[in-house]
Formats: sequence, C-alpha cells, structure tokens
Amino acid sequence: MFASMSDAMRHPALFAFQSRSLAMRCLACTAFFLCLTAFAERPAAAQEDRPPNVVLIFADDLGYGDIGVYGHPTIRTPNLDRMATEGMKFTQFYVGASVCTPSRAALLTGRLPIRSGMASDQRRVFFPDSKLGLPAREITIAEALKGAGYATGIVGKWHLGHLEPFLPTNHGFDSYYGIPYSNDMDRVAGGEWQEIFWEPKSEYWNVPLLRDTEVIERPVDQETITRRYTQEAVAFIRDHAEEPFFLYLPHSMPHTPLFRSAAFAGHSKAGLYGDVIEEIDWSVGQVMQTLEEEGIAENTLVFFTSDNGPWLIFRTHGGSAGLLRDGKGTTYEGGMRSPALAWWPGTIPAGAVNSALVTAMDVFPTVLGMAGVPVPDDRMIDGMDIGNILRGSGEDAHDMILYYRGTRIFAARVGPWKAHFITQRAYIGDDPVSHDTPILNHLEHDPSERFDVSAEHPEVLEEIAARVAEHQAGLDPWPTQLDARIEE
Amino acid sequence: MFASMSDAMRHPALFAFQSRSLAMRCLACTAFFLCLTAFAERPAAAQEDRPPNVVLIFADDLGYGDIGVYGHPTIRTPNLDRMATEGMKFTQFYVGASVCTPSRAALLTGRLPIRSGMASDQRRVFFPDSKLGLPAREITIAEALKGAGYATGIVGKWHLGHLEPFLPTNHGFDSYYGIPYSNDMDRVAGGEWQEIFWEPKSEYWNVPLLRDTEVIERPVDQETITRRYTQEAVAFIRDHAEEPFFLYLPHSMPHTPLFRSAAFAGHSKAGLYGDVIEEIDWSVGQVMQTLEEEGIAENTLVFFTSDNGPWLIFRTHGGSAGLLRDGKGTTYEGGMRSPALAWWPGTIPAGAVNSALVTAMDVFPTVLGMAGVPVPDDRMIDGMDIGNILRGSGEDAHDMILYYRGTRIFAARVGPWKAHFITQRAYIGDDPVSHDTPILNHLEHDPSERFDVSAEHPEVLEEIAARVAEHQAGLDPWPTQLDARIEE
Repeated sequence: MFASMSDAMRHPALFAFQSRSLAMRCLACTAFFLCLTAFAERPAAAQEDRPPNVVLIFADDLGYGDIGVYGHPTIRTPNLDRMATEGMKFTQFYVGASVCTPSRAALLTGRLPIRSGMASDQRRVFFPDSKLGLPAREITIAEALKGAGYATGIVGKWHLGHLEPFLPTNHGFDSYYGIPYSNDMDRVAGGEWQEIFWEPKSEYWNVPLLRDTEVIERPVDQETITRRYTQEAVAFIRDHAEEPFFLYLPHSMPHTPLFRSAAFAGHSKAGLYGDVIEEIDWSVGQVMQTLEEEGIAENTLVFFTSDNGPWLIFRTHGGSAGLLRDGKGTTYEGGMRSPALAWWPGTIPAGAVNSALVTAMDVFPTVLGMAGVPVPDDRMIDGMDIGNILRGSGEDAHDMILYYRGTRIFAARVGPWKAHFITQRAYIGDDPVSHDTPILNHLEHDPSERFDVSAEHPEVLEEIAARVAEHQAGLDPWPTQLDARIEE
Repeated sequence: MFASMSDAMRHPALFAFQSRSLAMRCLACTAFFLCLTAFAERPAAAQEDRPPNVVLIFADDLGYGDIGVYGHPTIRTPNLDRMATEGMKFTQFYVGASVCTPSRAALLTGRLPIRSGMASDQRRVFFPDSKLGLPAREITIAEALKGAGYATGIVGKWHLGHLEPFLPTNHGFDSYYGIPYSNDMDRVAGGEWQEIFWEPKSEYWNVPLLRDTEVIERPVDQETITRRYTQEAVAFIRDHAEEPFFLYLPHSMPHTPLFRSAAFAGHSKAGLYGDVIEEIDWSVGQVMQTLEEEGIAENTLVFFTSDNGPWLIFRTHGGSAGLLRDGKGTTYEGGMRSPALAWWPGTIPAGAVNSALVTAMDVFPTVLGMAGVPVPDDRMIDGMDIGNILRGSGEDAHDMILYYRGTRIFAARVGPWKAHFITQRAYIGDDPVSHDTPILNHLEHDPSERFDVSAEHPEVLEEIAARVAEHQAGLDPWPTQLDARIEE
C-alpha cells in the first residue's frame, strides 16, 4: 500500500539471476559451514562458558518518539524504560531502509539491502503476489548461529518472501510462528481505507498465520496476536533455557491496522496506538521476566528496535518520530533512525546512553562475535561488531551512514554531517525532489534537520560526495527480487 | 527583545494602583504572618522531625526535548537523567506563561500572572528601564517559608523587578546572588543581532551581577556564570545544612547569548547549546552530591524545570521542544509545557513517570504543605498541593490548564482536550490569528497538535468555552506592572 504498486517493468533477467543465486548458495554455504565446524562440534559447556543467548525484538513502524525514555508523554513503557535504566539506550541507531522488507533483510544479514536484491525502485516490499524472497545465498543471523549449535526460533512477522523456499525455516530458523507479510495485506473488505483502518476487524484482511511452513489460521486473529507471540516467545525461551538460543521476535504491531488484546483495550492515555505499544511493552517485560525466572538473564542479550519510523499518513494511528523529521518511507531521520535498547545485566553498563553511529546491520557481526562464529568473508558485510560498545569499553563505530531509498542513495551522513541529495516526504503523492546543491544538516547540532548549511560548508559536501562515489564504485548490487510476481 | 518594545500607551492609573498595592501589602502580610506564628516559634527539631529542605532549580528557555530522558539524542544529561531514574519525571507539566517574567511570578506565587499584575499586552517581561516589579503584596515561596523558620536564598536570574523595592531580599529571600533580568538585556554592542549572539562576549551587554541589593560586577562575566551560581548554591547548602532551607536556583542559561565555562567548551556533541545544557546538568549533579555529602538528601526535595519552551528563532542556539509544537512565546505545547523532574530519595518513588496535569504554580502550595505552612486564604492560589502525587500515593491533579498570552486566554485545556482560540507562532513578525471555530486537539492522542478535530467534537468546544467563561467571571486581575518605565 505504501510501496509503489506500479510494477509494469518486470525485469526479464530475473529468473536467470534467481538460478545463479541458487548455485552460489551452495558454494557460499559450504565454505561458511566449514568455518563453523569447530563451534558446532564443541561439547555442551556450563552456562558461564557457553555463548550468550540472543533475543532480538523488532517492532514494526514504532517511531523514535514512541517510548517513554525517548520522550513520549502519554505512552507508558515501564519495561522498555527499564531496559534503558538497566542497560544501554542508543540515540543514533540507523536501520537499513525506511520500509519493512529491506530493513528486515539488512537486520538479518548485516548487509545493505541492495547487496541482497532487497531493493527496487518499483516495489519497495514483498506483497502476497510476490514470487521471490530473500535469496538462499544470503546468510541470516539464524543460519550463522544454528551452525554454531544455537537453537533458533522466530515468532512474528517475516516479510522476506512467503513462498516456501523463502520461509524462515529455509533461512536458518528451527521453528516459525507468525505472519508472512504485513498485516494490512490481503485486504478483502471494501470501503474507504480510512474506515477499514479506523475500527479494524481481523476479517477485513486475509492474512495467514503459519507454524513452520503450514498455514494454521486464516485470517489470523489479529486482536490476540501480540499476546500469542508473547506466549510463543516465552515457551521458546523455557524450552531452550539449557542451550544457547537465538530468538527473533518481530512484532506485527504497531503497523496499521492496529489491534490489541482485550486486556489492553483502553489501557493507555494515548488511545488505540498507545494501547498497542503498551501491550508490546508488556511483552518485553514478559521476556525479561522469563529470562530472570530461568536464571539466564545474565547470559542473554536482549536487543529491541524498530524496522523503520512511524507511518505518519495514519494520523493518530501512526506513531511519533519525536524531535526527528518526518517518518516511515523517507530518508529523513524520522524514517531511518530508530529507538534501540540493549539489556544484558552484568555485561552492558546500566543506564548508559550511547550516541555512537550504529546500525541494525551491526547486530549480525556483533552476535556472531559473541557466539564465537566467524563473520563470512566471502561477501561484503556492512555492519560492524559493536560488542565493545555494548560492554562500555569502546566507542569504535561507523563514520558513514547511507540512506538508500530503493536502489538509489538519497542521502549520506559522514560524522555529524548529512547531505541530502534527493528528498521525498512521507505523504501520499509527494514526488522526489533532486537538489543540485544537496541539503546539508549538522545532525548533532540540528537533529530535526531544520537548517540547511550547505552554503557555508561546500568542502563537507565534496567529502561526502567522494565517500559516496567510493562506496558506489565498489558496489556489486544483486538483482532485485522484489518486483517478480506469481503468474496468475 | 522578544517581547514587544512598543510601549506607547502607558496606563495613567498605574501609580494609583501601585500605592494601593503597598497599602494592601501591609494588611495581607499581617494576616499571613499571624498564621505562621506557631511554626516560626517552634523549637529547632531533630532532622527527622523538621520540615524538608527545598531546592528549586529553574532553567531559562530549556525546551521539553533538551534532556536525555526527554529524548534528546546528543545532549548528555546524566544527572538530570538520574533525577528521573531515582525520582519522578512529569510529562504534562505546565508553566504559567511562555516568557520569563510572568512564568517566574507564577512559580514563586502559585498564581496566574494576571492576578499579580505580571501580564500585559504591551510588554511581556521587565526590561532595564522598567519602573516596577512583582507587587509587594504578593507572597513568594521564600516569604512563606521564611516565616516558618526557613533559611531562604536565591542564586541566579530574578526578572521580577530590578529596582530595590522589588529585589529578592524584599520578597522573602535572606540572600541574593545573581542577575536582575535577562542576559540579553542592556545591550551595548552594535552590529547585526546574529553576529553579536553567534560569538558572544560578556561586554556586548552591560548586565549587572548583584549580591543582595549591591551591584558587585558590571558587566557580569557570563562565561563563568553557571559555575559561579553552582559554587554559591553549594555554599548555601553547606551553610544551612543544619536548618530547614529553601534554595531557589534560577539559571541564566540556556537563554541566549549562550556562555559556558572553559571546562565545558566543546564538551557536547550538540555544539555550544549542548555545552551550556551539559554545564547545567553538571550543576544539578553538584547540588545532588552536596546534599548527599551533607547527609540531607533524604530530607530535601529537589525540583527541576524550565521557565518556558525553547527560543526557536535562535536556530541552533535555541533548544528543542521534542515532539511538542513550536516554542517560547507561544501557547502551543512547546511554549508552555516544560520538562520537570522531582528527586527526593526515600520519599518520591524511583523511576516514576507521571502524566498528571500539574503546573509550576503547584510548587507553592506543595512546598508550603510539606513545611506545614498554611496556604494564604486571602487570595486566589491557582496551584494545588501535589504532595500526594510526589509520594506516589495519589493522582489528584488539575483538569484544566489555561494558556494565557499577556492578559488574554489564547487556549484552554480540559482533560485531554485543548481548544486554541487564538494562535500565534514563535517567529518574528507572525501576527495572532483568531479562530471563529477554535482549533481542537486531543493532546494525549496527538501531543504534537497536528490534527484539528473541532468539527467532530463541538460539545467539547462548548464545555471548554463554559469553563473559560466561568474562570473569567471570577477573575479579578491586578493592573499590569509591566509597562511603566523609569522617567529618563
């Protein structure tokens, strides 16, 4: 719905590339798993010796300003606030794209979406008629950790291809419980979109719920979805408390249409949107409490973030980017800077606020590093290991952030400076505007992107342009997988 | 500078009112101090029996979004964050006006500025040529607590009249160290204002520094002002650690022109403005540390807030209202909702986030209540005692907030609903706009005032209009003291 529906120019070479992808998968995976043998075969160790568990919680369209400790006045998030108080809050954390599919690909692979075919200038995300998914040659966090003996589970929204070859169980996850794409897809109800979304019912959409590769409910009952995800997540943790595990918990909410269980109806002063966030916050609390009850909190990294900024066109059913400009879908800060919290009692210093430039792509090398799994060296990994930052023992982070929209770089940040080459707001019908002289913002002095200082700093624009050119010269994009449709 | 300089229509009755003010002062004060006799005469008690100390820290033009725990990404405020983590953070805290003088009057008297003559539609604040000040008949927090045996001190900016009869030592303070009005007044340097402010020097202004009623330095060295205020505040606390005390610490900063001491030059990623806030944060830490070292932290309420929103016309030398709309000078939320933190170990629950509707005017009855001092009953007090809220044992707060600009009510909030009758942005040259149908915002669903829902809720507009009319019918405004000038 948000991504372009115009899909006329299907690329004739797509299927050729797809075959190449399958061939390369075998080569890449063989090399990679050889590296892992040592780890996979080592005997079960005592808890203190064994690698840490990882719980990766990913909200959908939650804005930078939607959490108490990020400044929201009426959404109450005591559990997320506790993650900050007892752990680390990141204030300059970037996702790989400002919409669902490419952001998720970046998170799970540690790579810019353009490297994995998850970028297109036609379709920005997968739809129910999409034919492809995340290429098999891509290595997800789950696949890497599974090779090192981790139990791997996903509970929640996938959105990296809903046909069987692309489902989570074919991307390194032992188990899957969740919906395959966004909860506003497969729409079956008529009427104006505002009506449908303003008092939504699950049956207005025909979204399936899957367990592993089987559809177990259709349409999924969205009202109970956050509660059921939580129950599944808690059960996964309890089932695997004795072994290293990776749990990926990508909530379907607060992506519109908004649903929350009966216990959270009217829970928040902030209305339906607030209710939804407060149920997610409750869910985070359940995860933390379960880890504590199982006695494994001190051996588990819990990381919370959001796939992209708030969906502003949905008015009060969309969130807030706080002091950041604009939201989902854009390359303004409100689109691509997410709240991010890391909790690991005894390892991450309590109450730390970190403004280093870090990205969702850093999760991949960081958790591999913690697990003692070598990062694949047969491909470009855009993330970096930020384990030292999490432990409070280092500040070594990125000095450049790229703001891709589809296959094009709309903006780039070097240090505090952001050059915006092309801008496009998050409102329906807004066209992209190319700037002959890019807009230049000093994001650390001017986080809201209010003041264009390009005239005062031409040398900064030159440096950023040179860095972008250097990146592009070394880029080997993978053909897009987003545009191909199932033959009717 | 921000307030109107056009002052042609001096009110001929002003001096008559002034005389009446002095006469009423005697009556009011006599009655009031009779009430206090019991408290003033009681013997010195052990610390656990004696009333709590109060430290009231008031920043100048600090925005809702300028503190870490309110969502700023690059201004680091570990001490203010600590106040939130160990104390209470308010998210819907309102000041009495969106500019300096009336906001300070409201804080210190517990009354709307219009009741004390601190409202005018010509001059919005006092200037160096102002003839008057806060009327003597007004009872400040200091005056009330002094009568109950408190030591009372002010360190910082007064701005309630700089001629002797109006100085703090004639309003209940035992001692005064600070500047009498804003740090951008008494300008002596020429040139474009942007040049003067962008790389300011103390000698561009002729602002005096006073001790009690004597000028001890002119122009004040602004570079060291936050540091020197802090030293004075620490000394005051140490000097009075054995008796109940009230310390009012209204910083001159971050009001432009911005200055910070050498130790904070380049301290912040957020530039000069960030340096200034980080020095104030350091100062807050010094106060907390001193209270702990003296062993009186558990018998002291520390309350931190700001007089009004950020001064947006100063671009990166002004702050951020976070997700709130607009800033200083306006009746949008960014003008009149301030960050507010309360710290009192052992009494205020740690990590509490409170979204009750509370105001700066509540400080007066609340601290009087804590000190066992009866609230004056010969005048309207607009604040309410929020001691129960601070202790985490109640939620009883205001259900109406009035947004005065000068003598006129521009907006009113009842529950979550805000009706905006007249709007005016914080930009130079913007005129007020009266709305035949007021703008209606649901502030708890829409904290950024994005969506006018007046058409859907005419009954809410009617209720708010009735509440405002009721307020105005019972109002007995005091003649303005702001417009009279010293005869040249």
